[in-house]
Amino acid sequence: MGRTAAQSLVAWLEELGRISDEPDGLTRTFLSPAMRRSNAQVTRWMAAAGLAVREDPMGNVIGRLEGPTPDAKTLWLGSHLDTVRRAGRFDGALGVLTPIAALAELRRRRVNLPFAVEVIGFSEEEGVRFASGYLGSKAFTGQLRPADLALRDADGVTVREAVARWHSLTPGRSIPVRSSARGGRPGDRLIPFPSSRPAPSSLLGYVEVHIEQGPVLERERLAVGVVSAIAGQTRGRIVLRGQAGHAGTTPMALRRDALAGAAEFVRFVESTARLRAPLVATVGSLTVTPGAPNVIPGEVKLSLDVRHPRDPARRAALTHLLAEARAIARRRGLKFTWEKTQDDGAVACAPELTARLEASVQAVQSRSVTLVSGAGHDAVVVAAVAPVAMLFVRCRGGLSHHPDEYAAPADIGVALDVLVEFLLRLAPPAAAAKRKSSR
Amino acid sequence: MGRTAAQSLVAWLEELGRISDEPDGLTRTFLSPAMRRSNAQVTRWMAAAGLAVREDPMGNVIGRLEGPTPDAKTLWLGSHLDTVRRAGRFDGALGVLTPIAALAELRRRRVNLPFAVEVIGFSEEEGVRFASGYLGSKAFTGQLRPADLALRDADGVTVREAVARWHSLTPGRSIPVRSSARGGRPGDRLIPFPSSRPAPSSLLGYVEVHIEQGPVLERERLAVGVVSAIAGQTRGRIVLRGQAGHAGTTPMALRRDALAGAAEFVRFVESTARLRAPLVATVGSLTVTPGAPNVIPGEVKLSLDVRHPRDPARRAALTHLLAEARAIARRRGLKFTWEKTQDDGAVACAPELTARLEASVQAVQSRSVTLVSGAGHDAVVVAAVAPVAMLFVRCRGGLSHHPDEYAAPADIGVALDVLVEFLLRLAPPAAAAKRKSSR
Repeated sequence: MGRTAAQSLVAWLEELGRISDEPDGLTRTFLSPAMRRSNAQVTRWMAAAGLAVREDPMGNVIGRLEGPTPDAKTLWLGSHLDTVRRAGRFDGALGVLTPIAALAELRRRRVNLPFAVEVIGFSEEEGVRFASGYLGSKAFTGQLRPADLALRDADGVTVREAVARWHSLTPGRSIPVRSSARGGRPGDRLIPFPSSRPAPSSLLGYVEVHIEQGPVLERERLAVGVVSAIAGQTRGRIVLRGQAGHAGTTPMALRRDALAGAAEFVRFVESTARLRAPLVATVGSLTVTPGAPNVIPGEVKLSLDVRHPRDPARRAALTHLLAEARAIARRRGLKFTWEKTQDDGAVACAPELTARLEASVQAVQSRSVTLVSGAGHDAVVVAAVAPVAMLFVRCRGGLSHHPDEYAAPADIGVALDVLVEFLLRLAPPAAAAKRKSSR
Repeated sequence: MGRTAAQSLVAWLEELGRISDEPDGLTRTFLSPAMRRSNAQVTRWMAAAGLAVREDPMGNVIGRLEGPTPDAKTLWLGSHLDTVRRAGRFDGALGVLTPIAALAELRRRRVNLPFAVEVIGFSEEEGVRFASGYLGSKAFTGQLRPADLALRDADGVTVREAVARWHSLTPGRSIPVRSSARGGRPGDRLIPFPSSRPAPSSLLGYVEVHIEQGPVLERERLAVGVVSAIAGQTRGRIVLRGQAGHAGTTPMALRRDALAGAAEFVRFVESTARLRAPLVATVGSLTVTPGAPNVIPGEVKLSLDVRHPRDPARRAALTHLLAEARAIARRRGLKFTWEKTQDDGAVACAPELTARLEASVQAVQSRSVTLVSGAGHDAVVVAAVAPVAMLFVRCRGGLSHHPDEYAAPADIGVALDVLVEFLLRLAPPAAAAKRKSSR
């Protein structure tokens, strides 16, 4: 099936990848001129696929395919349309355009789905402009907080102000965000937002297609895989303080070398994570003071990033690592400090929705693997209001957030086939429950 | 003996420590205004001790005590008068002023030595102004090369030009460095320099008193110790290249983490040096690229500094360390490069002169230890033309090159006593040889 649909999808990705705020390279940040053009382009593709398109106050673009009856449940499909700086063209966009292509394909086949579908292009996920991500999905799912609206970009503009400007510049915009019936400030009506969001009981769930951004599928020689969970993450900074000294005149036995202690810890982090897969633990940043070739390191600052799909395992690993860091510091006469800067719980994908997605993968691809997503995605936010499932697509070398980010057309075709298969197989929850109990 | 002499010496060190090019802190660099004032002050102290003082074209200040006969041999005593930036007041100065105090004390006791003595305050050792050290001792011992004279300071002034300016600004200066009989450029006559240097056969040797700049004497609870050798040193840079990647999405087993490899090497450097004392080996500088908390380190650059009093041991250790670095890189799929930036052979102190110094230490202090100097000193350069010996003085916390550098007055008194004892015991080589063979 769908060679033409897959080819269209690949062409769309290329076209969308040319809509950028910068002449060389793809950079499309929240509420930028490029976002206005990309929303307009996505709107055209959605409309051509038979979807009724709207844009919400946060700039999320939503294409809706109505169900057979007004009380039919709704399936959400989507990802984000913003990018990092000098981005690749697959991260985010793939999860918005693949559903449009899938619905276009079903329309071509004259298939009527027994439920409503909304394809959502979230306006903000990467956290580039306001140094905080998920603004689009938070707004769409009613989770935006006043603190989010008060965030400022590098020019000192708040999210609230940026949203107001965006709408004031939109011709024929019907949503009056500049004024409020209750006399509030522009943007106030975004909380809670949108009021038209379906109640949880009317939702079938949310499925997000995304490039893997890692090397597992490439190693497994598979085009796509199913995500079982999105890892929780703890991040922080360790400082080890020893004693700087002359590298020539201080005997080894009298040293308190902060880098030698840090090296011991870096090795321990690696060996611990190797023994506790799917734990990943990384020291990505390390600086040495004073940092001269002939001076014994007096102080080392290093980052620690620990992720695991199960929160208790992540917390246990962190405790284990920090206990060893303290022990190393004690043995070596170093001063130890730890400062936690981030602590996000894991998000488990919904078992039933994920099982259906896995069955669809098995129907299209000879074999299915489940992966843990080490990176965060819109599904993390949507999971608070709906069951979520994710399909990962192989990307070359695991490379992402880079102009060389690449997913092969054949793999994109497989992802499209899987999504079409998934939509065809998806029955109302009652029927699904019946099917499950008869296994 | 010498309580008054020791007190004078401590007062001199304080006074000299106030002669600085900067209002706050001690900074006295080669051919600076402060050096002119410090040379003048040292000249006064030398003259008061009965020495005939001269300054050579390189700004070395030399105080000579004649021997009993014109053919008497000469003993050199000295160190450097320049400092690092924000220096302590003992590094260098102690080795110039202690001999002056010792000769003043012998004069007070009306002792006539059977040899000539020259106390030398070398004008340049630290390499601050021209980023290359030992200019004073190189000139004094005829080892200055044209390349040394062509070195430029931060303002682009060459050593040759700086020396010419220094002399043109010196009132009544008799050495015509601005013109040359052979029509050469100013400074040309510095090579070889000075022509008046005694022939090696007329030299008894060179003894340098210096603060230890390390923690050994403090640990041993000894005021002074004798240096057996000045360590050879190899310095260079290692680069390990792996593969940067997403810290969340790349499983441990698929990583090529340059920092994890570097950590393994840093630990190996430390454990190797601990097993091979007096080897010291240091990774003092280490930088991680890209260096973000959520990115696996793709590249690490690190420095390696290896020192040992015996050259074959240093070379063997270096070979051992680099072999392991290569093995680590191979096991981990990292690219390895090594670039040597410095390679200096060890300088052994002269056994006989050192044995005499040790005997003098034992006469003054209950116990003597021998130390290896991990830092370079003027003695390294002088060793090319004369037997050398060095006396180290305990300094607090091993701290040097810092305003808090400190040697206790009592320890300085011990060093002075040892030097006086050494001068009293020093007999002409023939007598010394006789004494040795009778043991």
